[in-house]
Amino acid sequence: MEYIRGIRQKEALELPEILAEKDFGKEIIVEGTVHSIRDMGDVAFLILRKRDGLLQTVYETGVCRCPLSDIKEAAALRVRGTLQEEARAPHGIELRLADVEILSLPENPLPLAISKWKMNASLEARLNLRPIALRNIKERAKFKIQEGITRGFRDFLYGQGFTEIHTPKIGAKGAEGGSNLFRLSYFHKPAVLAQSPQFYKQMMVGVFDRVFETGPVFRAEKHNTKRHLNEYTSLDLEMGYIEDFTDIMAMETGFLQYTMALLQREYREELRLLQITLPRAEEIPMVRFDTAKRLVSEKYQRRIKNPFDLEPEEEQLIGRYFQEECGADFVFVTHYPSAKRPFYAMDDPADPRYTLSFDLLFHGLEITTGGQRIHRYQELKKKMDARNMEEEGMEQYLDTFRYGMPPHGGLGIGLERLTMQLLGEENVREACLFPRDLGRLEP
Amino acid sequence: MEYIRGIRQKEALELPEILAEKDFGKEIIVEGTVHSIRDMGDVAFLILRKRDGLLQTVYETGVCRCPLSDIKEAAALRVRGTLQEEARAPHGIELRLADVEILSLPENPLPLAISKWKMNASLEARLNLRPIALRNIKERAKFKIQEGITRGFRDFLYGQGFTEIHTPKIGAKGAEGGSNLFRLSYFHKPAVLAQSPQFYKQMMVGVFDRVFETGPVFRAEKHNTKRHLNEYTSLDLEMGYIEDFTDIMAMETGFLQYTMALLQREYREELRLLQITLPRAEEIPMVRFDTAKRLVSEKYQRRIKNPFDLEPEEEQLIGRYFQEECGADFVFVTHYPSAKRPFYAMDDPADPRYTLSFDLLFHGLEITTGGQRIHRYQELKKKMDARNMEEEGMEQYLDTFRYGMPPHGGLGIGLERLTMQLLGEENVREACLFPRDLGRLEP
Repeated sequence: MEYIRGIRQKEALELPEILAEKDFGKEIIVEGTVHSIRDMGDVAFLILRKRDGLLQTVYETGVCRCPLSDIKEAAALRVRGTLQEEARAPHGIELRLADVEILSLPENPLPLAISKWKMNASLEARLNLRPIALRNIKERAKFKIQEGITRGFRDFLYGQGFTEIHTPKIGAKGAEGGSNLFRLSYFHKPAVLAQSPQFYKQMMVGVFDRVFETGPVFRAEKHNTKRHLNEYTSLDLEMGYIEDFTDIMAMETGFLQYTMALLQREYREELRLLQITLPRAEEIPMVRFDTAKRLVSEKYQRRIKNPFDLEPEEEQLIGRYFQEECGADFVFVTHYPSAKRPFYAMDDPADPRYTLSFDLLFHGLEITTGGQRIHRYQELKKKMDARNMEEEGMEQYLDTFRYGMPPHGGLGIGLERLTMQLLGEENVREACLFPRDLGRLEP
Repeated sequence: MEYIRGIRQKEALELPEILAEKDFGKEIIVEGTVHSIRDMGDVAFLILRKRDGLLQTVYETGVCRCPLSDIKEAAALRVRGTLQEEARAPHGIELRLADVEILSLPENPLPLAISKWKMNASLEARLNLRPIALRNIKERAKFKIQEGITRGFRDFLYGQGFTEIHTPKIGAKGAEGGSNLFRLSYFHKPAVLAQSPQFYKQMMVGVFDRVFETGPVFRAEKHNTKRHLNEYTSLDLEMGYIEDFTDIMAMETGFLQYTMALLQREYREELRLLQITLPRAEEIPMVRFDTAKRLVSEKYQRRIKNPFDLEPEEEQLIGRYFQEECGADFVFVTHYPSAKRPFYAMDDPADPRYTLSFDLLFHGLEITTGGQRIHRYQELKKKMDARNMEEEGMEQYLDTFRYGMPPHGGLGIGLERLTMQLLGEENVREACLFPRDLGRLEP
């Protein structure tokens, strides 16, 4: 009988192993892709791209059996060589090659100069050739940062007693009403793609008290802006037994603090590559919606057009105001008008024209919407009636409240938007591996 | 200016805090939902359901201001009381109540007896009332176990140098060909829901070497069996620079070992509640597809009907064979026939009728499909031509190989199937919060 007994120690070394040892003079084996070739005549520098960064190798004529002319950019290699100190090379090391084995060769030269530090190609061109463009060191580093954010979200919430859930993306009815839904036929029944796990995460508060989900959401919005995607990753949480809606903001602040520390600790190289200064999350100012509107109107001489809505430009100005007034990268804007929030948002008993809800702005862009939800059945029914909403397809959601629910609230964070702001990018598509927008369904 | 400064210490305690201190005689505050009420006349036992388990509280007539008749099952409470030792109560503790505050009340009595140890309701009834049925202690424990599996998968792979990716679920073309796809209109363009992240994860091997994704996949299969869901969570990984396809099986074995240890360590209470004996993953036997067929045919006197396919019953017998012969809970079945595998599977050079691929069976059920992939452009083209496949819509995928790819392979694990087998359930719907099948689109 043959058995598999678990992971095997690979003979070929990865960069962290090499850098931990720095065993100069030792012969080691390394695998990687040829990122660039600089042929100097007698010697050539083959820069290998590995998952943790670049490694310089030195090819000397007459040493390796494999001729230099056989080695192409984008070839996958397995090489043997002696580790040496070299201050001018990445990480201060290089490998003097004794042997090169070609594992695979490309068919054609690369269509993009991915080995350049900053790629000289438009966003459109980079998105069209996404699987190739992402091989650029800086491009791929953005998605390591994105990984760090998702990881921080989960790890922090596990530590806070949250349970991770997986809720269905195909359903009979959407959470926020009829518009902006992608529709499909599900075995001859009408179905929609989930625009949010809202109903499910609320229902699961009755089971686990605190739940979270990281998953795709789908919005058939006809916006074609730098801030919108039609499919994105939502970081959602919902928590019971809150005293008021600031508990939710406190939880989000805790997540941001945890995640910035995680990035600082474990994604140092990517932060350096992308020259990112992490935002301050020690304390986040909070301001009422109406106050925020008044403050920016006064400071920036801007007339308030609609007292019940925030324009994107106003969000930017609120961000600017709190940056200027108290050096804040984030601002919580609270008490959004009831008319602009979904039916399940809890109205403020002190003034029911407003809700116990918030948005989080990061450098002037909304990255989170959250708030307290109605937890009493009769109150929910009353609000649905006032909005002339049908109960059809919502029976299970309503029943959950009929059978008892604790006070609760939650939030949803747009992962790509948070990543975009952290990276200082202008377009959310820069922060999505394979964006879906009005015009883009491929790759 | 008001600020939010991060998570706040709650006054109300959670079970792990109470059990860590066991400060008997101390007055504490606790929140929870009334799981059951046992009225004994002078005293009543109110069992509170908290996220980490049950807590017995003792209500004595004349002590609390809140009358017992006001307290209903499924009410959310905030109580104050004195912690006492009580061997007969859950966790050996109880709370003598001094004060009860009702946070919310249900509208109607519960439609299911969720406080029973084992619920006396059919699967169909429990699925119809899923948000309520999951409040049962054993029902919800299943999904804590499921959380542990997903968590183990990610944590193990982070440690092995994998990068987490998020790939689109709406696309122009499916990975495995035209059948079994849910179709939708994407802004008047034909689109499909991803039945696998296969193409994307392979393309990302060229960027990150090792990638994984945990997310939903959609299969419009018209099967209505105990093993099929039309939407499920897939744990996917793909890794470059493999020496051969057993490297992938070794990685999966490592994941299983890591996860069983994680469950043993951090999900002890749920394992106990559900009386789960964790499977052995120290060493997993591997057997060729054709050998496995022959072995079970001989041992169980079963005629081989089709030498190129495995029937579900044969999978069960293979599981039984290796259980009986070497006490194995898992078996890798390798070298599946090429005709039964997708075009991107690498054929065995020694006998191209078979592929360098595997399934992992867990107690006789397939929970994983994986293998080495073709990494050379011309080879991929040749196999597509031989199968009369069109290149339309696959250009980006093919281009990735045109521009160089290392040898690689990967696998996909059905999270619900793995959970189901771990729990010893008969139906995969037991291991999915909100299953989607031929007949079920709600809740």
